[in-house]
Amino acid sequence: MLSDRREIGITVRKGNDFSEWYTQVVMKAELADYSPAKGFMILRPYGYAIWERIQKLLDREIKKLGHQNIYFPVLIPESLLAKEADHFAGFIPEVFWVTSAGDTTLGERLAARPTSESIAYASFSKWIKSWRDLPLLLNCWNSVLRAEIKGTKPFIRTSEFLWQEGHTAHENEADAEEEVFRILELYRSLMEKVLAVPVYVGYKSEKEKFVGAEYTITLEALMPDGRALQMGTSHNLGQNFSKPFEIRFLGKDNKEHYAWQTSWGVSWRLIGSVIMTHGDDKGLVLPPRIAPIHCVIVPIYYNKTDRQEIMSESERIEESLKSRKVRTHTDNRDHYTPGWKFHHWELKGVPLRIEIGPRDLKAREIVLVRRDHGKKVRVKIDSVETAVIDSLRDMQQHLYELAQASLREGTTEAEDYSELSSSIEKNLGFVKAAWCGAESCEEQVKNETGADIRLIPLAKEEARTACLVCGKESKHLVYFAKAY
Amino acid sequence: MLSDRREIGITVRKGNDFSEWYTQVVMKAELADYSPAKGFMILRPYGYAIWERIQKLLDREIKKLGHQNIYFPVLIPESLLAKEADHFAGFIPEVFWVTSAGDTTLGERLAARPTSESIAYASFSKWIKSWRDLPLLLNCWNSVLRAEIKGTKPFIRTSEFLWQEGHTAHENEADAEEEVFRILELYRSLMEKVLAVPVYVGYKSEKEKFVGAEYTITLEALMPDGRALQMGTSHNLGQNFSKPFEIRFLGKDNKEHYAWQTSWGVSWRLIGSVIMTHGDDKGLVLPPRIAPIHCVIVPIYYNKTDRQEIMSESERIEESLKSRKVRTHTDNRDHYTPGWKFHHWELKGVPLRIEIGPRDLKAREIVLVRRDHGKKVRVKIDSVETAVIDSLRDMQQHLYELAQASLREGTTEAEDYSELSSSIEKNLGFVKAAWCGAESCEEQVKNETGADIRLIPLAKEEARTACLVCGKESKHLVYFAKAY
Repeated sequence: MLSDRREIGITVRKGNDFSEWYTQVVMKAELADYSPAKGFMILRPYGYAIWERIQKLLDREIKKLGHQNIYFPVLIPESLLAKEADHFAGFIPEVFWVTSAGDTTLGERLAARPTSESIAYASFSKWIKSWRDLPLLLNCWNSVLRAEIKGTKPFIRTSEFLWQEGHTAHENEADAEEEVFRILELYRSLMEKVLAVPVYVGYKSEKEKFVGAEYTITLEALMPDGRALQMGTSHNLGQNFSKPFEIRFLGKDNKEHYAWQTSWGVSWRLIGSVIMTHGDDKGLVLPPRIAPIHCVIVPIYYNKTDRQEIMSESERIEESLKSRKVRTHTDNRDHYTPGWKFHHWELKGVPLRIEIGPRDLKAREIVLVRRDHGKKVRVKIDSVETAVIDSLRDMQQHLYELAQASLREGTTEAEDYSELSSSIEKNLGFVKAAWCGAESCEEQVKNETGADIRLIPLAKEEARTACLVCGKESKHLVYFAKAY
Repeated sequence: MLSDRREIGITVRKGNDFSEWYTQVVMKAELADYSPAKGFMILRPYGYAIWERIQKLLDREIKKLGHQNIYFPVLIPESLLAKEADHFAGFIPEVFWVTSAGDTTLGERLAARPTSESIAYASFSKWIKSWRDLPLLLNCWNSVLRAEIKGTKPFIRTSEFLWQEGHTAHENEADAEEEVFRILELYRSLMEKVLAVPVYVGYKSEKEKFVGAEYTITLEALMPDGRALQMGTSHNLGQNFSKPFEIRFLGKDNKEHYAWQTSWGVSWRLIGSVIMTHGDDKGLVLPPRIAPIHCVIVPIYYNKTDRQEIMSESERIEESLKSRKVRTHTDNRDHYTPGWKFHHWELKGVPLRIEIGPRDLKAREIVLVRRDHGKKVRVKIDSVETAVIDSLRDMQQHLYELAQASLREGTTEAEDYSELSSSIEKNLGFVKAAWCGAESCEEQVKNETGADIRLIPLAKEEARTACLVCGKESKHLVYFAKAY
């Protein structure tokens, strides 16, 4: 019943059954696992190590912009969550409610935080008195809970997820707007330069914006099955929260003002985007910048003498690479064959593999294999460090270029409603279309095709046609897509 | 109503009203704040920065010992929490229960995790199949929820707290025991070398051990009011969880075995211990190793020309110190006086202050002030880096020595019951006393004096008397104290 054998390897092709392929990669690469509570996910050590990389890089940038981390409690009294009416109405269908502690029924229900605006801003009103207290720039690393009624998908849609949520308060509208766009650029850079996932950015429609926001800026990527994935959002809250929460301050003009606010977040969903975008039939492919292991060394030997020599050379190379900040691991397990190890580390998406056997050693060479295109090159041991560092840089860039090409190919423009509808049906990706701005037209497309307006470009793109739905004058050329 | 003024400064003496002093330091140094939900605490940016320091140092050591981080969901189905009966019975009085999601009443209640043994070990049984999967060494950084019915105190006793919880599984009993003690030493080193808080270590009595453990090792510090503070615990779980959770593996002997387990944790309570131990009438005093700011530079000037020169010298010193990994901050605010700034940074416990004024600059000197004893020294600008680094090292050591002297003074031995009872009543600290090992005697002391057995020394200490309660033969010399 119990056995020491492990099944590895993905049994379906990415192009044939994308959904099953995704689940297998998540599970077999040991990124995550299901939890006994339905809809919840366990982030396993390998997945957690990727999250730590993202967290470390993002945290550093958030702090560079002057933000400080803070922790707000996970339980929020219902009356507090209810203070901003739209916000409350938007979140209430998915709130987990705590109703008792031990044997005692609570006088007021407590919400497991779906997001922290309400509990944060109750404190902002205590902490902010003067313009000298502004801007107040805070960030939280925590988990939030939103009961998922639709099917759940690891990393993409779960009833609890790890994320960061930023919350800021500013003296005036312009400062808040600047913050919204500063964070947008931070996120864009994280996604494109670190995750190698290109994104479109733009406004959400009124229907799709964050509940309680003035407006929402979104970053949207395209997954290989033609669906859009919302990667992160940055909200301008205006004074919508500062008024009910009474966040007032004495201005430079010696008058009382309500603060101007923003909030913004990205979650472990980013890991989902990486899996979907870069993975292949062999499993995960990790962009070097977030890979817990950059380079795995697989020693190849057939007898004890060889083993000793090859091991000691492998360790020397490992140390040398580590001293150059290359995260290197030597797989010295004797009970697995080199072939098994190749598959294992390919499944786990490690960017580079070094193979070193007796003949290689004699020639003072190693074989270097890149995970993305699988090409092998022979490299002199003397120059292995340079070769590894160059390959990591090239691979990071190559993954981005491939994804960028897919995004370009996956973006079309529809001239009429039937083209919009058929492009969506064929899962072509983003379909640009003229829209009059009416929510009724937006809803009709959603109901008939399943596609949302994913974004309205920041810089207005001119439409060549009238609204594809109602034929009235077009207000925006917008990006439609089905989405996760 | 709104005003730009701030009250700073602690209005009571540590020695006169310790409890009020503690609350004022927490609030006025902006370490934490109360939350709208009763019993919950907000960890403010300055407190969070201290937590990040502790977290970073501890996380590094935990990883060096081979542990990996993981995230388990915050909600645990009741049936899972109930699998280990003692564990369940111990935690159930303080569990927050989630009973609905949106409008839907859940089929089974979900517990907000009071600790993660149950949810972790449900997965261990899936992940562990062979001896090759062992040891499994995992750690979580998360928050746990335990409804506090007694009065709450920031950092010390709150209904939610940030902590780390380690969970491991081993092939045999000896390996698990080794892990328990390896972690004990890791914790001891963190407390003594990083927090400068000396601790006693020992076993918990059967009555006080972790519910579900074979035995618990505890680290106990002494606070200035004579109360013990449990700083951390490391539990040997034996096979108490692996049996109900069916964590079985195929051993090297090709037979099936149940795993041997440990769990262990420390929380933000560590910050509470630092505040209580090192703080003084002026406020917080931070050991350099966890201070978010090591050294604050306060420029002193009376006119614009001075300001420019002094600011540029201050910035040069700041850069030079930063390049030597001294966390330095120049307080260049024009709207506060130097005197106000001195008080402000003393309240915040910053280890060192550099004062630099026009006459100092002319003499190419600065004034260096240590937060612990307040002594001022004049230092040549040329040697400020060395002076700062030496002072930080000396202050770290000095704080530890002071605390160690207090611990020694606060540890006495009782020859008879009335001495035990009166020493506890006088808040003398730890009182060593002979104990027969019976829970009835332990309970009598608790009921009559309010003191618990805080620990049973690891290396047996010989008692010179019989059990102070019942007069029967003594089994252990144990440490009694009232505790937080």
